[in-house]
Amino acid sequence: MTTLLEPKIPKGFRDFLPAEKRRRDFVVEKLKKAFESFGFEPLETPALEYAETLEGKYGEEEKLIYKFEDRGGRLVALRYDQTVPLARVVSQYPQLPKPFKRYQIQPAWRAESPQKGRFREFLQCDFDVVGTNSLLADAEVIMVIVSTLKKLGFRDFQIQINSRKLLTEMMKEAKVSEDKVISAIIAIDKLEKIGQGGVVEELTKRGLNKETAAKVLQVLERAKPNEELSILFNYLNLVGLKQYFTFQPSLARGLTYYTGPIFELKVKDYPGGSLGGGGRYDQLIGLFTRQDQPAVGFSFGFERLIEAMEKLNLLPEKQSNAQVLVTVFSPQLLEKSLALTKQLREKGLNTEIYLDPSVKLEKQLKYADLKGVPYAVILGPEEAEKEEATLKNLQTKEQKRLSVEKLAVEIKFP
Amino acid sequence: MTTLLEPKIPKGFRDFLPAEKRRRDFVVEKLKKAFESFGFEPLETPALEYAETLEGKYGEEEKLIYKFEDRGGRLVALRYDQTVPLARVVSQYPQLPKPFKRYQIQPAWRAESPQKGRFREFLQCDFDVVGTNSLLADAEVIMVIVSTLKKLGFRDFQIQINSRKLLTEMMKEAKVSEDKVISAIIAIDKLEKIGQGGVVEELTKRGLNKETAAKVLQVLERAKPNEELSILFNYLNLVGLKQYFTFQPSLARGLTYYTGPIFELKVKDYPGGSLGGGGRYDQLIGLFTRQDQPAVGFSFGFERLIEAMEKLNLLPEKQSNAQVLVTVFSPQLLEKSLALTKQLREKGLNTEIYLDPSVKLEKQLKYADLKGVPYAVILGPEEAEKEEATLKNLQTKEQKRLSVEKLAVEIKFP
Repeated sequence: MTTLLEPKIPKGFRDFLPAEKRRRDFVVEKLKKAFESFGFEPLETPALEYAETLEGKYGEEEKLIYKFEDRGGRLVALRYDQTVPLARVVSQYPQLPKPFKRYQIQPAWRAESPQKGRFREFLQCDFDVVGTNSLLADAEVIMVIVSTLKKLGFRDFQIQINSRKLLTEMMKEAKVSEDKVISAIIAIDKLEKIGQGGVVEELTKRGLNKETAAKVLQVLERAKPNEELSILFNYLNLVGLKQYFTFQPSLARGLTYYTGPIFELKVKDYPGGSLGGGGRYDQLIGLFTRQDQPAVGFSFGFERLIEAMEKLNLLPEKQSNAQVLVTVFSPQLLEKSLALTKQLREKGLNTEIYLDPSVKLEKQLKYADLKGVPYAVILGPEEAEKEEATLKNLQTKEQKRLSVEKLAVEIKFP
Repeated sequence: MTTLLEPKIPKGFRDFLPAEKRRRDFVVEKLKKAFESFGFEPLETPALEYAETLEGKYGEEEKLIYKFEDRGGRLVALRYDQTVPLARVVSQYPQLPKPFKRYQIQPAWRAESPQKGRFREFLQCDFDVVGTNSLLADAEVIMVIVSTLKKLGFRDFQIQINSRKLLTEMMKEAKVSEDKVISAIIAIDKLEKIGQGGVVEELTKRGLNKETAAKVLQVLERAKPNEELSILFNYLNLVGLKQYFTFQPSLARGLTYYTGPIFELKVKDYPGGSLGGGGRYDQLIGLFTRQDQPAVGFSFGFERLIEAMEKLNLLPEKQSNAQVLVTVFSPQLLEKSLALTKQLREKGLNTEIYLDPSVKLEKQLKYADLKGVPYAVILGPEEAEKEEATLKNLQTKEQKRLSVEKLAVEIKFP
């Protein structure tokens, strides 16, 4: 006898069994509908890119890229996000009409240390507009976020907005030396989490003197939207989204490629952090084409979105895609049961027949119960003779005898 | 200036730009609907499995598995198919109700030499029934294939059916020595392609003497369905599928794990080979649990399905998900254009607004044309004053001035 294999998967990876997978598909469908309602088109890029395509884009996090040599000895890498592949696509296919509005919903892989809510394989849901400087595009990104969240059933959420340009201007005003600007911005980003005292400490740890650190906080407190933010906020007010956004001058976001407005989505009553982030990145695409191509977009944190929806009871409870199980009373009645199954399916019901005529009725009903199918149909000799069938509601345990004609109606409109 | 990156992807991998991605999504949706109408539930497994989970299951093809060491020094492998992961899942989660009917639509990766129609990353669309010996399950697999093909618009197709058991019995009858049975079966599988003469040649090349080779062909010619095939065919006749299947005694299929009936799908007028295959594999799951778990399933060759649909004109021509583009006549009229966009979207139309108010109308219309949006709306000062808008059909170039109320109706029911 050969060794027995233990069935298991690598840490940080997940199986999605039907109940969970259905919920994820439900949310993905809503996202697609929302993106498409604004005219975004779908894009798919391969799981493997040349490693050099991804390298040098993600700052310190680059070490989390899954890289390996393929059989031809070339260094390849698993998709780390969908923004760099988008930049590559836009450069590779200059014929794409601009503005190029695309959404992309695919997994990404990062060799993180697995922990609660952080996985090595996770779904990314991005939408971006490439090819226009107009801040109307940034405004549309915010509109799409609001529309999507509403479609998902969220009510109380806020998009925090800041500008990378404004952050740099503020650091200049506070007289932070040029080589410390990025480090200081990273410290500021923690303001909400660690408070003013924490930030001052963090700033001095990063080599700013106390005076400059204090000045940074002062400048932050007095911060006002710069020109680009004023235009953006004006657009948002115009479309009635005043209540959904906040100016958050300490917001920085980690990724180094942002150049303009930046966004982060927070949902009230969900303590697990931001549900997504994005912003304008006008120089990333130039790495491939030497011609900068303006771009702005957003990425939903799908795993957190699901978690938040679960917490707020926004996910449907449906337990099974099958709406009804037709049992097989006996091998003699199989033909009639098959015919009935076909009829119900043709009436648009997801209909399952129990696949083993030799199994006892009781066990067949138990299967439907376990699987969460809401209805079962019993077609015994008596029913068969009268061209009827017994419909059993598996939740209430109610049964009624119905003509075959009326069965589908009863299941659809109980 | 840093080196310019050439935007490109590894050989055998593909980008799907919007037009192509939409067509793929269209077909995936149809497949899901078909699977769900029979009560199959969705499953998702991770892209990376431990290498040992996949090894020893695929025969000679095992060398095509993408394998590498992860950062913890464990050997991991990219999903090679969806059957072995299913076997792992069934063993790992014994609580899943049986029969477990699942479908799975995810990419798989194989380090093949790329050639026409053969890729290193390709979509697999599988459905399987695990946990019953009943041949009604095998019959249902065939029913699902027929129903799916009809939903996709195919008319003239055949499912070739044979039995692994019958093949072994036939080899015994032809007195093929036990150590040559598998090799001989592989030769027989080529009958349709290379004819009787070719098969005899192939058999002798594989070490059978001429007499035995001739006997093999003789046995093949006289082959009749064995008991399991007779039961299966009886079920298929019962549900009216007589015209859709053929007994094909030379059919063998490569994979070593099949144990009972095997299937292959052929579409008339598509010369590119089979559009999918499957069969019963009652021992694969036992590799994980030591308890054999009967199973039967089928895998659609998605890439060929798309190719065949293209050839037979079964794919929709829709060029864009956006149904209408609202142009922006001038920055002064932006607010009104935004309001109209919102109204149309609320009426259920995928509505795009041109995202840069500083761009000339002509260029905006050209964008809609390039992208394949069927309608554009023009809202100039005159229209604005009368609470109207001009609707332009971008295919016929027809224009009409309409009240805002009537716009959506006209786009929906032209």
